[in-house]
Amino acid sequence: MKKKVTWLAGALLGLLLVMSFMRSGQVRSADAADKPNIIILFCDDLGYGDLSAYGHPTIRTPNLDRMAAEGMKFTNFYSGSPACTASRYALLTGRFPVRSGFEWVLYPKSERGIHPREWTLAEGLKSAGYATACYGKWHLGTTKKAYLPLQNGFDEYVGLPYSNDMLPPQHPPIALMEGNDTLQLNPDQAQLTALYTERAKAFIRKHKAEPFFVYLPYAMPHVPLHPGEKFAGRSPRGTYGDVVEEIDWSAGEILELLKAEGLDENTLVFFTSDNGPWIIKNELGGSAGLLRDGKGSTWEGGMRVPGIARWPGTIKAGTLQLQQASTLDLYTTCLALAGQSPPIDGRSVDGRDISALLHGKQDTTLADRPYFYYGPHVLQAVRKGPWKLHLITSSQTGRDYFNGKLPLLFNLETDPSEQYGLSDARPEIVQELMELAEQHKRQAAQEGSFWGKE
Amino acid sequence: MKKKVTWLAGALLGLLLVMSFMRSGQVRSADAADKPNIIILFCDDLGYGDLSAYGHPTIRTPNLDRMAAEGMKFTNFYSGSPACTASRYALLTGRFPVRSGFEWVLYPKSERGIHPREWTLAEGLKSAGYATACYGKWHLGTTKKAYLPLQNGFDEYVGLPYSNDMLPPQHPPIALMEGNDTLQLNPDQAQLTALYTERAKAFIRKHKAEPFFVYLPYAMPHVPLHPGEKFAGRSPRGTYGDVVEEIDWSAGEILELLKAEGLDENTLVFFTSDNGPWIIKNELGGSAGLLRDGKGSTWEGGMRVPGIARWPGTIKAGTLQLQQASTLDLYTTCLALAGQSPPIDGRSVDGRDISALLHGKQDTTLADRPYFYYGPHVLQAVRKGPWKLHLITSSQTGRDYFNGKLPLLFNLETDPSEQYGLSDARPEIVQELMELAEQHKRQAAQEGSFWGKE
Repeated sequence: MKKKVTWLAGALLGLLLVMSFMRSGQVRSADAADKPNIIILFCDDLGYGDLSAYGHPTIRTPNLDRMAAEGMKFTNFYSGSPACTASRYALLTGRFPVRSGFEWVLYPKSERGIHPREWTLAEGLKSAGYATACYGKWHLGTTKKAYLPLQNGFDEYVGLPYSNDMLPPQHPPIALMEGNDTLQLNPDQAQLTALYTERAKAFIRKHKAEPFFVYLPYAMPHVPLHPGEKFAGRSPRGTYGDVVEEIDWSAGEILELLKAEGLDENTLVFFTSDNGPWIIKNELGGSAGLLRDGKGSTWEGGMRVPGIARWPGTIKAGTLQLQQASTLDLYTTCLALAGQSPPIDGRSVDGRDISALLHGKQDTTLADRPYFYYGPHVLQAVRKGPWKLHLITSSQTGRDYFNGKLPLLFNLETDPSEQYGLSDARPEIVQELMELAEQHKRQAAQEGSFWGKE
Repeated sequence: MKKKVTWLAGALLGLLLVMSFMRSGQVRSADAADKPNIIILFCDDLGYGDLSAYGHPTIRTPNLDRMAAEGMKFTNFYSGSPACTASRYALLTGRFPVRSGFEWVLYPKSERGIHPREWTLAEGLKSAGYATACYGKWHLGTTKKAYLPLQNGFDEYVGLPYSNDMLPPQHPPIALMEGNDTLQLNPDQAQLTALYTERAKAFIRKHKAEPFFVYLPYAMPHVPLHPGEKFAGRSPRGTYGDVVEEIDWSAGEILELLKAEGLDENTLVFFTSDNGPWIIKNELGGSAGLLRDGKGSTWEGGMRVPGIARWPGTIKAGTLQLQQASTLDLYTTCLALAGQSPPIDGRSVDGRDISALLHGKQDTTLADRPYFYYGPHVLQAVRKGPWKLHLITSSQTGRDYFNGKLPLLFNLETDPSEQYGLSDARPEIVQELMELAEQHKRQAAQEGSFWGKE
């Protein structure tokens, strides 16, 4: 009996030693090796056309261009919404804005925030053993503790919790938070990109031996534009170019660290944006390239954004990805990579696992699934395959491009700039997409939201 | 005496043997090694936004994207004119359209052609010992033998000598030429890209031991669009995408051959287009991306085109080139690389040697030189540094974007889409560019053209 206990104690001690050694950062467990690290670099108001990899002539983004050349460049990638809050909600929950009853933009004093019943990407990854951190713009509620990042799956948080233009006198002093607390009132915005980058790098170094998730929602290039000292006045594109080039620098720093730490092959890095460019800000806003309109609109320029995935050894270098996908899919895909699934409790999760695409495999079930464009309050358009039907159109510019003609049908593959309306020519497609939209609206109304009907 | 003759004869025989061996394609002479092979891939009506490397979402150009990743991508590169003939003239002579008195588009029965006094890029390279060939759309005159490629410096020619839409009944049957002769009337346009590619490859193989110049002015993507059998119906972008993807295949074939033959490091390949997309053709025309308007216009979309240079060992991989440059510069640069200079006989040569840029060196004298936009008949705009002044604007769409307001000043670096007019805000820049334009017009009028005043 005594012998048995001694043997057991020895075994336990050995196990503890091994575990402590693993936690010390020298060895990654077999379990962890199967779970790739995940880093999401999330810009604010960066347009489809704002990187040199997507054709911008005077914004230089060599690190992101290289990231695309070494990885996968999406050309039909959507944000969950054409506005900040709903887009972030969609990314972290995998759900269309209508699911949450949470379709507006939050202000510092807004009563609501992310609903406690949501199971965020961070919560999912945390329960799979990931160390999790968010550095940047939260924008999912601040007036209750329950809305904050630490209560929604993140081990660490540093950042401005709402948009960087929500300033006094209309709003309370802007607060830089650390965890649940205010770190600094009215911080110098010019230091934010560098701060978020340094914190992300420190977190990666600290947690390199376990799977980690870093969500980096930059404050830029949302107005007011504040480039760091090293970037101010450097870009030919002006201040807008300065802040985008600083984000490119930030991405480069993180990619370089991954390489230096030998983490390249087990880290998926995804770069994208929360919505299209804020074109009504003129030169202070970005460019949607060949796409129509921008932020706040469900024209392509409002929701189609750059999407770059890098994961050496898994994603083939230089892959062009034309398949329609979205930030909602990042939710489901990252959970799947961590061996997790969204809750099965009646809630709709709209994102799909697109890891087949990352692995260079065909998944025909992805090709024809619909995408629903929320504006952000109501369903405004639906896409299926190449076809997009506008039920309602709107633009912050005030322009009505087709003189009120609705519904408007476009083939986004042959006509990416939405110029040549086809609703008269293809009534059967109009009919099909109308039915899809109605069906979706009925289902969404029936399911309701966690906040209840409004 | 006899001994001396024998020795001399032996030496001569040896020399002949060495020369014949060199010509046989096994050894490249030391002289030839200093002269890089030059290949110019020249599209017809391809827009700034039509390659995936420049952000097109549904045209797949993996070979050209890789060419850019391995070489230099220009984002401020201009064609010599917004229309076919004048653009080709400018490329092959290094001169603005006004110099030649040759500013219009040629038809099969047009009386004029390239002036015999012009010293084309092919003539220059030929005199430097290059084997020279042109496969594709000539469009510099056919009604006199003197206008044809073989009389203008090319050893070989196969191609349609004018635009592929100049068809019966308005025009005589379209002729595919070989050398000075008609090879075939009404050829199948769907075979042209493959034909030009095969001829170019055969020429490269044959002349790999000497410096060679291949000018490949594709018939596509000018309407009518005729993709080859392997490409028809393949591109999500439709027929326009099919023909561009076939050109991408063609570029890939040529790059692959260069690699296989060990010619990579002594071959400069340059890919570009003769003008912007023919947007009035709707889906049959291309996209200028974020640039305004297209072919036939001196808005940026009419003249700024993709420009990709590849020359491994000389051009650093993944270089983004923001410097303003043009097809006129290709003339002077390629001559300089071959150790040649344009004639010094009073004619203006407007192109500059930009080989410093290819070598990754600064050349500050290039930064502030003006560029003159011909429409194609008259001077319509001038650029210096970031500033562009429109003296006259026109568009084949019939649109007048600024309600007749002229002159119009834009900063192309901060405002690449020419949206925010600055002529009221910066009268001193307007004044400077007006004077530049006047000076240029006076000089051009004084110099006249080879055809005399009209």
